[in-house]
Amino acid sequence: MEKLKIGIAGLGRLGKIHAKNLADRISGCELTAACSLLESELEYARTELGVRDCYTNFREMLKNADMDAVAIVTTSGEHCNQLTAALNAGKHVFCEKPLGISVEECYLAEKAVENHPDKVFMLGFMRRFDPSYIYAKQKIESGTIGEPYLVKATGIDPLKFIEGSLRFAGTSGGLFIDMAIHDIDLMRWYLGAEPKSVYAIGGSYGFPQFAALGDAEAGCALFRFENGAMGTIHSGRTAAHGYHIETEIVGTKGAIRISPIPQKNLAMLYCEQGVVTECVEAFPERFAEAYLSEMQEFVNCIREGRKPAVTVYDGTKATQIAFATTESFKNGRLVEIPPHG
Amino acid sequence: MEKLKIGIAGLGRLGKIHAKNLADRISGCELTAACSLLESELEYARTELGVRDCYTNFREMLKNADMDAVAIVTTSGEHCNQLTAALNAGKHVFCEKPLGISVEECYLAEKAVENHPDKVFMLGFMRRFDPSYIYAKQKIESGTIGEPYLVKATGIDPLKFIEGSLRFAGTSGGLFIDMAIHDIDLMRWYLGAEPKSVYAIGGSYGFPQFAALGDAEAGCALFRFENGAMGTIHSGRTAAHGYHIETEIVGTKGAIRISPIPQKNLAMLYCEQGVVTECVEAFPERFAEAYLSEMQEFVNCIREGRKPAVTVYDGTKATQIAFATTESFKNGRLVEIPPHG
Amino acid sequence: MEKLKIGIAGLGRLGKIHAKNLADRISGCELTAACSLLESELEYARTELGVRDCYTNFREMLKNADMDAVAIVTTSGEHCNQLTAALNAGKHVFCEKPLGISVEECYLAEKAVENHPDKVFMLGFMRRFDPSYIYAKQKIESGTIGEPYLVKATGIDPLKFIEGSLRFAGTSGGLFIDMAIHDIDLMRWYLGAEPKSVYAIGGSYGFPQFAALGDAEAGCALFRFENGAMGTIHSGRTAAHGYHIETEIVGTKGAIRISPIPQKNLAMLYCEQGVVTECVEAFPERFAEAYLSEMQEFVNCIREGRKPAVTVYDGTKATQIAFATTESFKNGRLVEIPPHG
Amino acid sequence: MEKLKIGIAGLGRLGKIHAKNLADRISGCELTAACSLLESELEYARTELGVRDCYTNFREMLKNADMDAVAIVTTSGEHCNQLTAALNAGKHVFCEKPLGISVEECYLAEKAVENHPDKVFMLGFMRRFDPSYIYAKQKIESGTIGEPYLVKATGIDPLKFIEGSLRFAGTSGGLFIDMAIHDIDLMRWYLGAEPKSVYAIGGSYGFPQFAALGDAEAGCALFRFENGAMGTIHSGRTAAHGYHIETEIVGTKGAIRISPIPQKNLAMLYCEQGVVTECVEAFPERFAEAYLSEMQEFVNCIREGRKPAVTVYDGTKATQIAFATTESFKNGRLVEIPPHG
Repeated sequence: MEKLKIGIAGLGRLGKIHAKNLADRISGCELTAACSLLESELEYARTELGVRDCYTNFREMLKNADMDAVAIVTTSGEHCNQLTAALNAGKHVFCEKPLGISVEECYLAEKAVENHPDKVFMLGFMRRFDPSYIYAKQKIESGTIGEPYLVKATGIDPLKFIEGSLRFAGTSGGLFIDMAIHDIDLMRWYLGAEPKSVYAIGGSYGFPQFAALGDAEAGCALFRFENGAMGTIHSGRTAAHGYHIETEIVGTKGAIRISPIPQKNLAMLYCEQGVVTECVEAFPERFAEAYLSEMQEFVNCIREGRKPAVTVYDGTKATQIAFATTESFKNGRLVEIPPHG
Repeated sequence: MEKLKIGIAGLGRLGKIHAKNLADRISGCELTAACSLLESELEYARTELGVRDCYTNFREMLKNADMDAVAIVTTSGEHCNQLTAALNAGKHVFCEKPLGISVEECYLAEKAVENHPDKVFMLGFMRRFDPSYIYAKQKIESGTIGEPYLVKATGIDPLKFIEGSLRFAGTSGGLFIDMAIHDIDLMRWYLGAEPKSVYAIGGSYGFPQFAALGDAEAGCALFRFENGAMGTIHSGRTAAHGYHIETEIVGTKGAIRISPIPQKNLAMLYCEQGVVTECVEAFPERFAEAYLSEMQEFVNCIREGRKPAVTVYDGTKATQIAFATTESFKNGRLVEIPPHG
Repeated sequence: MEKLKIGIAGLGRLGKIHAKNLADRISGCELTAACSLLESELEYARTELGVRDCYTNFREMLKNADMDAVAIVTTSGEHCNQLTAALNAGKHVFCEKPLGISVEECYLAEKAVENHPDKVFMLGFMRRFDPSYIYAKQKIESGTIGEPYLVKATGIDPLKFIEGSLRFAGTSGGLFIDMAIHDIDLMRWYLGAEPKSVYAIGGSYGFPQFAALGDAEAGCALFRFENGAMGTIHSGRTAAHGYHIETEIVGTKGAIRISPIPQKNLAMLYCEQGVVTECVEAFPERFAEAYLSEMQEFVNCIREGRKPAVTVYDGTKATQIAFATTESFKNGRLVEIPPHG
Repeated sequence: MEKLKIGIAGLGRLGKIHAKNLADRISGCELTAACSLLESELEYARTELGVRDCYTNFREMLKNADMDAVAIVTTSGEHCNQLTAALNAGKHVFCEKPLGISVEECYLAEKAVENHPDKVFMLGFMRRFDPSYIYAKQKIESGTIGEPYLVKATGIDPLKFIEGSLRFAGTSGGLFIDMAIHDIDLMRWYLGAEPKSVYAIGGSYGFPQFAALGDAEAGCALFRFENGAMGTIHSGRTAAHGYHIETEIVGTKGAIRISPIPQKNLAMLYCEQGVVTECVEAFPERFAEAYLSEMQEFVNCIREGRKPAVTVYDGTKATQIAFATTESFKNGRLVEIPPHG
């Protein structure tokens, strides 16, 4: 079988991860084209990854590059337009989260996907491909914890990267859209249900700059699901110990907790402070394997004529819930989440 | 210095713990009297603890027993009346939580305490005397985690004792009053602030009997504090692994988490299932040392002419917050918590 | 039933622990007499523990004190003589380890105990009374790990107290006699068998002072048991993180490990270093509950006419094995351990 | 730069792992040839990995295949001959452990490598490429634990695969050669020194079949190093919980421990048994990343004209030490380990 030809759009921090995986570690494909606004990033693609076909304009890549599929890892505001254009150009599309920067954009994305039922579209909810999260899902499906009724999710960016968090705070959409969207997806995935209301609060405790931007440094949200289940999210940006992603699913017969200690590896240090477990620094380290597996699944879906389990509707739904959460945080009220569509 | 003479009222499960501690393991005191409605419990006091002066009527014990102080471990509905009577009878009083079964009763209790400024009154928020919780408090006070701004508390009774939970569900005041009151006290203690609003939800997932009683099997509450801090509580009654009390305090420079694994002891079992840590069965096991320390502090306070750090107002406040939480759960709305008094 | 009257001999670091327990926290007894060479220690007994009957001479205490039993917590060189004298004086005896400072002394102690079959004699192998160690023993007896065939024991004193370790190194008998004797007892207890040979090595890595005294800073020993089972001991004196006592028992169907992280309590700190568990500082903290339980068992045995499970022969055997281990370390050869007696 | 062409010899359990990595996940190379005695395995190479050039005879592959390098993953008895032939044929060689099935063979292998200084030769001590083991090495080199003086290593195969262990017990060389060789390599690597004597014991506790073959089901060895450092190894074949590889390095200022709980992933299960961490099943799961990294390093070395840090002498030395350990186990004596060469 011929190798799938894939192009990549966006070669920032996460774009480079996907590009490197596509070039070297995903079987059944080759990275044939790259697009970036920055010449330095294209130079990286040429020299490090051997990509000869480089573009500074996404539409030109779509028109001219020899590729079957494209991975969109550009800034959030471009996602909706680019995925639509790519589908219209006959390409399979992998798109990083978020699907769009408004619920309306998400509906447009849905339309685009629906218009091309022969194309594979996949959204980058990579946590669903992390071995620990997969394991939890399997345990739940095999009945180990009975009926799941509560998901408690925590996601905190490392304090170490607070500069970046502050720089992007104005344009990121805010804590619950930028940070909580993966947790929202996990809640829906594990509970198999949709939240119908949310109440959220937050504040800026160490960095008043967030408050000044109308955003929060840390926040908590409480979700009530249509089936009576519950969800809590704690999002933040200042974990001193590293990148903290923790999730617990509670069911009628037991619970599963993932990563209460976001360990860097299997080593523990016995030293003057006590027993110390060093933690992962950031998302590329924590989810290295998940980024690889999701892209392999994208390639496999195309080659095997399958559709990914993560759909465009998951993207819309998570976005809609994140917006409702933000609304609750902003106006201090309980917010009803309308049904999809 | 003479030994302090203490009587005990109530010899149920927790009453026996306090009685045994007073008789054998608290220094500077002796257990001189006991009161219970059940002759079998008094028989226990006589034969096991050597208490000769036994009563079936609290007022009679107050009138006749040779005692300086009394520990009230009776049913919740008696607390307010009995502590008032005891203070009026010139006794120092240790009283188990709750202070009263309504906020009004709590205010009455406050009055009684205020009327006897020469007497020591102490409320049984024993978690404040647990070594791990004390350690956390000290770390916070020494600035280790910066300014604390979020407390995440979990308290789940063991599934093993679900029969008892169901039996008392009708009279316990409900999940948030019965179970969450200790977590509420911890939030206030660690944050050094009062919550001003609460939103709570809950449901009955494995045991619809709770719903039938207007109660919840499990629930979550989200608190906003007057100083902008946050609190979350997850209460439940069906932990398959044992008695799960977990608390995390998040601050601007770090976090402290207590007991994510409610281990029975320091042993781990390597077996076919994997690596297994057996968990504590119930509160007497988890807080054995705390029950001892709080009573020792009560005795020391009396002997040294000090007042305990836990005051009658802590009791009122925790009760008031628990009622507001219950109200939110019952009517599905965000509830404002009025200031004290 | 009358309270048992107990005297204590030795009020050093460990002596104070036992004295305080006997005075305040052991049921069924009272501390009636104390003996120490230091007036300041006796003053402590008088003012803190309310002991009025104080002695600077052990024989005088035996002759004059109103006591049924005595706890011997003096320096190792006195144990054998004092326990013999106490038994001859008609007292029940609790004696701290070691039984004697030579195997010959241990045999003398055995004789003394055998000459007084009506008296309770108990040796302070307190680890057998630690809840985690008891739990492990019960799991083994109930067959959870099948047939135990290997004990891996680690015992390391805290670096923090290296000054004390160095000061006593010349008279302590050396690493394997001073430190490993509890591990040796545990191996025998868990395996239910006697070692028949030992090979031991050691060295001085950070503190050459130990080597200069013919002792080792750290050492390892490998034991072969008569029934084919195995044992390893790692002893040391310089744990940076605190007091490290860890034991693993491996059986044909599983293993139990006790305290790989010698945690101070149930709290974990999330901070810049990672996730940190602070550790216990020293033996009084680690074995506080065990010291209490063993003394309670001593009292209970006397009051109930039972004999303790830890016998004088356990003391001889552990001493003999510790000497054989030291011999192996000193001359670099495999050493056969003769049978008892 | 041209991609490196690599052939693989041996397509058993581990051979398939290497082949799949070379075909799909290692950058800078392609898998061009495969050799196996089994047609079914070659069929796998053809259909799953797209290898067209297949052989049943190693010498023919060397003569005819278009390849720059070869990975030898055949049975241990073939290693020495095949690596020599491959080097003589002008190929770079990656060879799985052991280097040879006798010390003499190892010396022959050394000669072969020395005769071809322009070729890259690398031995498959994959643990040195595991992220946790690399982390430990870096911590040690940066002085975090001071001077390392003791390595405690444990390696236990899963009980689940006891059938396989028993089947190969007759030809594997025995417990200490088959299982302990990686631990021996780690001791040398972390301590930076050579052991000069070893004492080893062992037994067959659940499976007497091992004893019947002159082998042990489990065993312990104690090593004294030339610089005074110490090493202990506990090898076994019957871990109920999974594949247990644990290593601790103790230094003058602290210690590092790797994998006391050989966790499958980051999830913990809270269930009736307690809190359960499921464990890795076997070496392919535990060392998946290490197998990938070591092969990438092999390819990188060739392409960059470097030599790997793991040398042929490491192979000889580990083999020699494993034989000495086996000798000690067999004759019950302390065995001196001669210097290299």
